[in-house]
Amino acid sequence: MNEGRTGVWFVGARGSVATTATVGIAALAEGLAEPVGLTTAGPAFEVVELPGFADLVVGGHDVDDTPLEERARRLAAGGMLPSRLVEAVAPRLHEADAALRPLTREPEGSQHDEIERRAADIRDFRDAHGLARVVVVDVASTEPLPADRPEFHDRAALDVALADPSARVLPSSTLSALAAVAGARAPYACFTPSLSLGIPALADLASASGVPVAGQDGKTGETLLRTVLAPMFTARGMRVRSWAGANLLGGGDGATLADPEAVRSKLVSKNRGLHDLLGDDVVAPLHIDNVPDLGDLKTAWDHVHAEGFLDTHITLQTTWSAYDSTLAAPLVIDLVRLLSLADAAGIAGPVPELGYFFKDPWGSDEHSFARQADELVSWALRTALRRSAAPVA
Amino acid sequence: MNEGRTGVWFVGARGSVATTATVGIAALAEGLAEPVGLTTAGPAFEVVELPGFADLVVGGHDVDDTPLEERARRLAAGGMLPSRLVEAVAPRLHEADAALRPLTREPEGSQHDEIERRAADIRDFRDAHGLARVVVVDVASTEPLPADRPEFHDRAALDVALADPSARVLPSSTLSALAAVAGARAPYACFTPSLSLGIPALADLASASGVPVAGQDGKTGETLLRTVLAPMFTARGMRVRSWAGANLLGGGDGATLADPEAVRSKLVSKNRGLHDLLGDDVVAPLHIDNVPDLGDLKTAWDHVHAEGFLDTHITLQTTWSAYDSTLAAPLVIDLVRLLSLADAAGIAGPVPELGYFFKDPWGSDEHSFARQADELVSWALRTALRRSAAPVA
Amino acid sequence: MNEGRTGVWFVGARGSVATTATVGIAALAEGLAEPVGLTTAGPAFEVVELPGFADLVVGGHDVDDTPLEERARRLAAGGMLPSRLVEAVAPRLHEADAALRPLTREPEGSQHDEIERRAADIRDFRDAHGLARVVVVDVASTEPLPADRPEFHDRAALDVALADPSARVLPSSTLSALAAVAGARAPYACFTPSLSLGIPALADLASASGVPVAGQDGKTGETLLRTVLAPMFTARGMRVRSWAGANLLGGGDGATLADPEAVRSKLVSKNRGLHDLLGDDVVAPLHIDNVPDLGDLKTAWDHVHAEGFLDTHITLQTTWSAYDSTLAAPLVIDLVRLLSLADAAGIAGPVPELGYFFKDPWGSDEHSFARQADELVSWALRTALRRSAAPVA
Amino acid sequence: MNEGRTGVWFVGARGSVATTATVGIAALAEGLAEPVGLTTAGPAFEVVELPGFADLVVGGHDVDDTPLEERARRLAAGGMLPSRLVEAVAPRLHEADAALRPLTREPEGSQHDEIERRAADIRDFRDAHGLARVVVVDVASTEPLPADRPEFHDRAALDVALADPSARVLPSSTLSALAAVAGARAPYACFTPSLSLGIPALADLASASGVPVAGQDGKTGETLLRTVLAPMFTARGMRVRSWAGANLLGGGDGATLADPEAVRSKLVSKNRGLHDLLGDDVVAPLHIDNVPDLGDLKTAWDHVHAEGFLDTHITLQTTWSAYDSTLAAPLVIDLVRLLSLADAAGIAGPVPELGYFFKDPWGSDEHSFARQADELVSWALRTALRRSAAPVA
Ligand SMILES: NC(=O)c1ccc[n+]([C@@H]2O[C@H](COP(=O)([O-])OP(=O)(O)OC[C@H]3O[C@@H](n4cnc5c(N)ncnc54)[C@H](O)[C@@H]3O)[C@@H](O)[C@H]2O)c1
Ligand SMILES: NC(=O)c1ccc[n+]([C@@H]2O[C@H](COP(=O)([O-])OP(=O)(O)OC[C@H]3O[C@@H](n4cnc5c(N)ncnc54)[C@H](O)[C@@H]3O)[C@@H](O)[C@H]2O)c1
Ligand SMILES: NC(=O)c1ccc[n+]([C@@H]2O[C@H](COP(=O)([O-])OP(=O)(O)OC[C@H]3O[C@@H](n4cnc5c(N)ncnc54)[C@H](O)[C@@H]3O)[C@@H](O)[C@H]2O)c1
Ligand SMILES: NC(=O)c1ccc[n+]([C@@H]2O[C@H](COP(=O)([O-])OP(=O)(O)OC[C@H]3O[C@@H](n4cnc5c(N)ncnc54)[C@H](O)[C@@H]3O)[C@@H](O)[C@H]2O)c1
Ligand code: NA
Ligand code: NA
Repeated sequence: MNEGRTGVWFVGARGSVATTATVGIAALAEGLAEPVGLTTAGPAFEVVELPGFADLVVGGHDVDDTPLEERARRLAAGGMLPSRLVEAVAPRLHEADAALRPLTREPEGSQHDEIERRAADIRDFRDAHGLARVVVVDVASTEPLPADRPEFHDRAALDVALADPSARVLPSSTLSALAAVAGARAPYACFTPSLSLGIPALADLASASGVPVAGQDGKTGETLLRTVLAPMFTARGMRVRSWAGANLLGGGDGATLADPEAVRSKLVSKNRGLHDLLGDDVVAPLHIDNVPDLGDLKTAWDHVHAEGFLDTHITLQTTWSAYDSTLAAPLVIDLVRLLSLADAAGIAGPVPELGYFFKDPWGSDEHSFARQADELVSWALRTALRRSAAPVA
Repeated sequence: MNEGRTGVWFVGARGSVATTATVGIAALAEGLAEPVGLTTAGPAFEVVELPGFADLVVGGHDVDDTPLEERARRLAAGGMLPSRLVEAVAPRLHEADAALRPLTREPEGSQHDEIERRAADIRDFRDAHGLARVVVVDVASTEPLPADRPEFHDRAALDVALADPSARVLPSSTLSALAAVAGARAPYACFTPSLSLGIPALADLASASGVPVAGQDGKTGETLLRTVLAPMFTARGMRVRSWAGANLLGGGDGATLADPEAVRSKLVSKNRGLHDLLGDDVVAPLHIDNVPDLGDLKTAWDHVHAEGFLDTHITLQTTWSAYDSTLAAPLVIDLVRLLSLADAAGIAGPVPELGYFFKDPWGSDEHSFARQADELVSWALRTALRRSAAPVA
Repeated sequence: MNEGRTGVWFVGARGSVATTATVGIAALAEGLAEPVGLTTAGPAFEVVELPGFADLVVGGHDVDDTPLEERARRLAAGGMLPSRLVEAVAPRLHEADAALRPLTREPEGSQHDEIERRAADIRDFRDAHGLARVVVVDVASTEPLPADRPEFHDRAALDVALADPSARVLPSSTLSALAAVAGARAPYACFTPSLSLGIPALADLASASGVPVAGQDGKTGETLLRTVLAPMFTARGMRVRSWAGANLLGGGDGATLADPEAVRSKLVSKNRGLHDLLGDDVVAPLHIDNVPDLGDLKTAWDHVHAEGFLDTHITLQTTWSAYDSTLAAPLVIDLVRLLSLADAAGIAGPVPELGYFFKDPWGSDEHSFARQADELVSWALRTALRRSAAPVA
Repeated sequence: MNEGRTGVWFVGARGSVATTATVGIAALAEGLAEPVGLTTAGPAFEVVELPGFADLVVGGHDVDDTPLEERARRLAAGGMLPSRLVEAVAPRLHEADAALRPLTREPEGSQHDEIERRAADIRDFRDAHGLARVVVVDVASTEPLPADRPEFHDRAALDVALADPSARVLPSSTLSALAAVAGARAPYACFTPSLSLGIPALADLASASGVPVAGQDGKTGETLLRTVLAPMFTARGMRVRSWAGANLLGGGDGATLADPEAVRSKLVSKNRGLHDLLGDDVVAPLHIDNVPDLGDLKTAWDHVHAEGFLDTHITLQTTWSAYDSTLAAPLVIDLVRLLSLADAAGIAGPVPELGYFFKDPWGSDEHSFARQADELVSWALRTALRRSAAPVA
């Protein structure tokens, strides 16, 4: 798209996923890396015009203040990133660092004010860099899911509470989503299982704001594998009886998920696709354990037991092992490119076809990876045509 | 299809796959088993009229003469089949046994005569039971692949050689295929990696004979898994560098494949889909070991190494463990039902959409399981419509 | 030992382990099975005189009243036992069933009375069958561990509470242990992780009663493997950093352990050896999941991460899959034979060398399987010598 | 041992194992690494006086001439060694490089002359550095095993052939072994499965020369695991029926073993312990595949099938993954230290207790790892006592 540069605004910009994505964008922009791991770099997308890597500009929010270069070096020391690459893109990391804005964990004043502050940061970033648009991606730490409350079901009541300086009604992920979608009219992707826009009172927010949104909770490792494998059993008429999973990981995400509150939203999100594809009777115990010595290398073991013809038993075990953030980062870049296209083509509201990237797809019940892949490609082609037919935004 | 009963003629009728299928057909016919493991019993096929299980009649050829009941009891003792089921269907096995005809390993006279004898057996079976049609399925032991020869490329020369009582130009699988397709005008499926119709001089045989055929080499375990998983890596832009496999099995197939000649055709067939889906550069060592103590329970371990974003390494291990013949038998029944439909709808020649069932699909280069599944369903719907529009065959 | 028959009294006599052991004893006695899986049938024990299989007589307690034959048939249906064997020994199962005595879950009167009733059952069994001795083995369902209380540390206070008809101070496992050791002067083995004799006030009970005891919690699958593998890492100077485990099982034990209270004692017991062998710093998350569709076939996955020379990383994964009760039953028979020998040789108190059979060995801190095996053999030889030197008991 | 410095002479000094060991010795000497992975650094050896790491001096032979630093940097790039460590010890690598002497693949003159040249290099190294002794360790590429020949059984005939300038009777590994043992009276360890001293005519060479020797073929990964696990099955009376193995590796060793000739000696050596521990009936298919993209990270999958009580089936799968040379290097250092002790204590000939380190132990039939570990410790204690009693060598 020859219409100028596109901003990428990370919520959780100093985290493992965001840092990896930032290093990756820099490396791709400088031709130091090939776009391996990106869906949008595949042959099916060749005719779809998307923002070039060199046209992406990174900014973002974080509650932490570790410099991006330092964060990247730590990831390199842990084996996540090649050291030589981090050093080669250090100047770009330094530049991106300057575009990051701090968040406070317990902001003062009303939550409405906090939303407005966050939105202003995004708008300032867009203006300062003269960007065509800014895509906001939430890659902050997974939050505990809050209990339901009346304000979640009543927009007016919610607005009252948001304006009340003493009330704390929304979690941070929702504040950021509101800042992006309503406050800055920015396309938005939720890569985490946090609450974000998942409350009834905000169901129409994105459509009303005229921006495309996509979510939620990136589908990268074990869950990806499950939504690839489960349809095989179904197509072949085998009855999956149980699908057990054990996840071992260290790193930042490991530490966060060691908290039994935070892990709950993740577990629900991880098992959603399985039950959707195989039915609710499947016994599906699932564990995530924090194993600090494994660092960012995540290992997942799954054990599937299915019943086949004439009472036969089929067992399948899978062990998947990968650095999680290098799986997530290219998806984040894909999302930025595709939401940018969607926005340019005038699409608003949740984009079901981006469900391909998520454990818990907004606007869609399709979890089968192969079908999602087909839907994504055909959506991208349709949208590119629509966009090229449309006057430049 | 309300047009009478359908014959199932197994080449290798006393083997593990055929015996399991015969027990299965009997159990389904008597309502003693549910159609678990059958693709054609799935919801997508609900509106497609296919031969009912009680309308299938089993016959076949084998070089061995162990009674079917005995063979079934041995499979039950080895854990492949439930004993109570075998006992419950023993009368039907006895009946099927009476419809089996012997083959000699080294038949006398010309190969043309042998083809004619085999065809006559099939025609007699059809007549004796008043069957609408007979579908022939080759589930005999895997043969060594013969070396190429001029007659394979020249139909006239081939016919001369076949008529020569002293010449032995075709392997048994091709004799049976000719008997079915040309000699008995019977729809035919090749479930093995043997030569069968895979010679240039016979490329048009099925179309010319007006019968549908499908092949080859049933896709049941490790290979099924590979063609489900490989497209995931491709869609996500990851580069698979190596895909190693180790297969352990005992039983009849294990003993056959312990022969380095026989195993060659199997190995080629098994790796075809992988290279087609991932390119020829993938390092793909593959072993099949005869481990008699494992009996019919086959265990396959695969190790996949892929390269992802920013030089990251992804490894995936899978261990699949199942009784091979209970995976194969429902596919054989699916094939009989679908080839019966194809024949009734007037389809002739290789049916590419049946590639879903095979490691090395005839008439198609599509190996991605998910795409094959979509193509199969849509083909079945189209063919059922065509069939219902056509006058009864 | 030519001194007459030996009784085996199972607490939990209708459970999976006890039923399997009872079937096994019958099959061994009738020469229908070989002593595969028995340590005491190995060459190292050839010169050690132990009770013959045909000289073992089974009795026991259970709160359930399902007939033994029915229980055995259910196990056979689930794949645990060969059906033909169960049928072949049905008369012996019927006989054993007649020797079983019921327990009530909530017995009336004082706990002292209940102990006395249980002891009387054991003594009656000994007298009725004219047995040289009765070895009691606790294979009842795992109990939740009770909270500590003053009576556990003060024998006098304990006796007072036991005599009080309204007090309930001890769990059932301890009542049975007291019945065996103090009430019936019977050698006793605790195959479960329940409280049993594990309270300070009973530390000297066995020595004082003059009977040998052994415990606790049979070491059969994953834990066995761990105590075999951990010493390898230690010997080679590698530093194990984490050892994660996932256990999947159905059956009776699966259902019991689905209770978070009951599973706690099991988890503690399972990890004891690991920490003892590798130190307390090893990160060792461990899960047991109830997966009913897997029945009695237990599958355990372990992931070990160790640090080696020059910061190298070593990972080892193991997947162990077996029918748990067929692993446990031969150990139970070994224990009966060896405790019988110990008793005949006049040994009293916990026998540390029987730690070989347990996750949490009484009287010993040795968890290394290889060392335990050496200690066991040498103890058996010493005890057999001592016994042959002693006058017949 | 306070008697001066000890030389380490590597045959194959520029290979992966030797380079890793050389980096490791340097790092240990400078206190940059802890002795993780060394058996001799364990508490059992605390009272045994062994050469200190700073007292080891490295030299050696190789047919290749890549500088050691470059070789080490390549290993670091492949993930085998930490880059910072390689850089930190670069000066020491440079020093060691200067002590390396070239070998030619096809040396001119008689083989006797070649032996003498190699011996002279070792002696010169000892003199130049004023070393108490030099321990020679063969870590060269695995050779194809030569066919048997009369000279292997007749020392006189062998000597005649060695003196004949046109005869080529011994492989390089045997030439190096003769150079070390007979030519330089140096203690010698054979870490490879090559022929080395394994010919009848040289059976007494080491004893006659008065030097201790140890071999053969380092036991580091899959084989180590097997000799740890197999004794468990035996002790518990389970009958192992099959033990299948698949090994995937790249790197130098992977390339060498891709040669079907070279791999044969390795396969024989790998399976020796298994058959010795479990009997010859165990079905044990074993494969080693060269998978270049895996580099030096070796992955081995084993599948064990055992029969237990009452016809139960037990399966165990293990996946071991590690950088092979970092497993081997500490063993090489252990061997140098222990052979140095043996030599100082006046021990000559094959040392059976060093079988702990080898797949195919010289002078011993013991393959059980636990027993070997016990024997090693007790031998080291005995030898240290003997040494301290002896006058300084
Ligand atoms: N494969 C994957 O890595 C993957 C897949 C799916 C989802 N996710 C999700 O992505 C998120 C990021 O994962 P990660 O590995 O980068 O975690 P991380 O812990 O490394 O990074 C999270 C970052 O968010 C920051 N943060 C915390 N609270 C914040 C707030 N209220 N506002 C702004 N920033 C905040 C933290 O300071 C940190 O820098 C997690 O929620 C994770 O569940 C990751
Ligand atoms: N999952 C699966 O089981 C699976 C998958 C793909 C392909 N296959 C193929 O199916 C075939 C059958 O497998 P199986 O396990 O039943 O093997 P099997 O050895 O149990 O049975 C083969 C039968 O073929 C008979 N036979 C041998 N030569 C014959 C000939 N010339 N004519 C007629 N019969 C002959 C044998 O006597 C035997 O009864 C094999 O070729 C196998 O490779 C099986
Ligand atoms: N490999 C193994 O199977 C293994 C290994 C170690 C320990 N164990 C332990 O052995 C025990 C038995 O295992 P299982 O698989 O046979 O379980 P199970 O559930 O099949 O059998 C337990 C039996 O105990 C009976 N019972 C319950 N409460 C009782 C009481 N108070 N008094 C007498 N009987 C009582 C039940 O009715 C049942 O018949 C469990 O505690 C288990 O943890 C088993
Ligand atoms: N875990 C392990 O790494 C392990 C375990 C057991 C045995 N081994 C054995 O150790 C040996 C070395 O393994 P590696 O990974 O270092 O292999 P490598 O290929 O990296 O190194 C072998 C070295 O030997 C040199 N060489 C070849 N022929 C020679 C000759 N005739 N004389 C002197 N040098 C020669 C080569 O140039 C090379 O530098 C192999 O035989 C291997 O089988 C290794
Ligand atoms: Na959805
Ligand atoms: Na030996």
